[in-house]
Amino acid sequence: MSERSGHPGFDAIAIVGVGLIGGSIAAAVTQRGIARTVIGVGRSRDRLEAAIEAGIIDRAATDFDTIDAAELVVVCTPVDRIVDDVRRAAILGPGTLITDAGSVKKCIVDELSGSLPEGVSFVGAHPMAGSEKTGWENGRADLFVDRLCVLTPDEQSPTDALNTVDQFWQALGMRTERMSPADHDRAVAATSHVPHVAAAAVVSLIDDSNARLASTGFRDVTRVAAGDPSLWLGILRGNKGAVTIEIDRLIQQMTMYRHALAADDADIVIQMLSEAQRRRDSLDL
Amino acid sequence: MSERSGHPGFDAIAIVGVGLIGGSIAAAVTQRGIARTVIGVGRSRDRLEAAIEAGIIDRAATDFDTIDAAELVVVCTPVDRIVDDVRRAAILGPGTLITDAGSVKKCIVDELSGSLPEGVSFVGAHPMAGSEKTGWENGRADLFVDRLCVLTPDEQSPTDALNTVDQFWQALGMRTERMSPADHDRAVAATSHVPHVAAAAVVSLIDDSNARLASTGFRDVTRVAAGDPSLWLGILRGNKGAVTIEIDRLIQQMTMYRHALAADDADIVIQMLSEAQRRRDSLDL
Repeated sequence: MSERSGHPGFDAIAIVGVGLIGGSIAAAVTQRGIARTVIGVGRSRDRLEAAIEAGIIDRAATDFDTIDAAELVVVCTPVDRIVDDVRRAAILGPGTLITDAGSVKKCIVDELSGSLPEGVSFVGAHPMAGSEKTGWENGRADLFVDRLCVLTPDEQSPTDALNTVDQFWQALGMRTERMSPADHDRAVAATSHVPHVAAAAVVSLIDDSNARLASTGFRDVTRVAAGDPSLWLGILRGNKGAVTIEIDRLIQQMTMYRHALAADDADIVIQMLSEAQRRRDSLDL
Repeated sequence: MSERSGHPGFDAIAIVGVGLIGGSIAAAVTQRGIARTVIGVGRSRDRLEAAIEAGIIDRAATDFDTIDAAELVVVCTPVDRIVDDVRRAAILGPGTLITDAGSVKKCIVDELSGSLPEGVSFVGAHPMAGSEKTGWENGRADLFVDRLCVLTPDEQSPTDALNTVDQFWQALGMRTERMSPADHDRAVAATSHVPHVAAAAVVSLIDDSNARLASTGFRDVTRVAAGDPSLWLGILRGNKGAVTIEIDRLIQQMTMYRHALAADDADIVIQMLSEAQRRRDSLDL
């Protein structure tokens, strides 16, 4: 442990996928002195070299074979590549601790559960911070400060591993909370995945005849729709069950508004809008 | 005309409804020297006196009977009160020019068309700026700068009246554009009214079990849902026809996402998300 409150004080941390999230984690680890060395693992040697130049990571690797040691591996690749990358990281051998930053958890935790070599532990995590932008150039060391990180251990997660991963995310400035992978996925379907679908659907209402009338309200409602389509495809597919349920609930709400307006039922409309306003105001965002 | 570029240079302007929009207009008129005197017209004497104290308006009136003159009346009340307030303002007599700031236009323009006294002109306007907040305390003199103001004259609008109203909104720093009331209403159903309904519907997905997982994406998608329910009820009812059509289109899009995900049709999902991203990025917001 370092002197700073509860820091796990690692010798070396490997970050797999040095994009917006991975780059922000790397920057925070360095700034907060959480590890002596940050190793960036990625597919593009050029991009990793540029990240070294920018001071985001200390060393670069395109394969785990070339890494001599890393006590903690943080997998920050798109959700549909996380399982493969965790398995690749397991080559580092007994004592290796792996966590991730994926926006879905159940399909990842289920697939990895019981399948890793002896002495290699995986504890799923979802740091709830991000941006519609991509690349470490858009990352920020303070991206995670005061934000929630959900940890989704399974029954096999050793207590030590869980505690160390918990301390790691806290060391980035986050609050942590433990949930089951299924509970996590249901919750984020409602708070993130389906709002994303709704934003993308709202954008489809725009055409050349009305685009110039889009204003600040439209800008905010649809901001997330600028996010990377392939990242979001992976997320939506990875959480298909909960996402389709929440889409159905959203369609049901829209249909209620539609019928109440068509029937000029002002009472229903004001009741629905007031309930939405009350709940929106009650959120600590 | 004053010396400043194209300013109509009014002696007195009356602003009916000194809330966020009316208060911002009053502040801009004073700051930009568009009128010598700004008269605030409202229902609450106390609120108007407070606005005088704050330097937002110069004089206060709760009735048009007590105003000796105002060459331009800007009606900034909720859309379901605009027609009544325009008729009340007509008491100021021949030469009075009236505009408004309502988010719907066809129902207002249709109802007023041909019904005002000889010599009193109304030119509908929709300054495309705002906030989910209310009250002149939240207003800003620069709220309208570089934003679009849609003017919706009918065939009976005298050219002089139309030009003066056009110059007035431009004097606040706005770009102006003329559209038919129906075209305006169709456009804003897609760019503003139905996005508002979508945001309110998204809020309904939140309950006590998932609220703490709502993050920045959710915050932005739902920001407008904090808007005043009674203001929005008036807007949605006033634009019922176009709003229900756009709600149907939105439901159709959501249904396509739902079916494509349930069928695990990645091609369709990525195509829809990519089209939304492309269009969102193409907007100048």
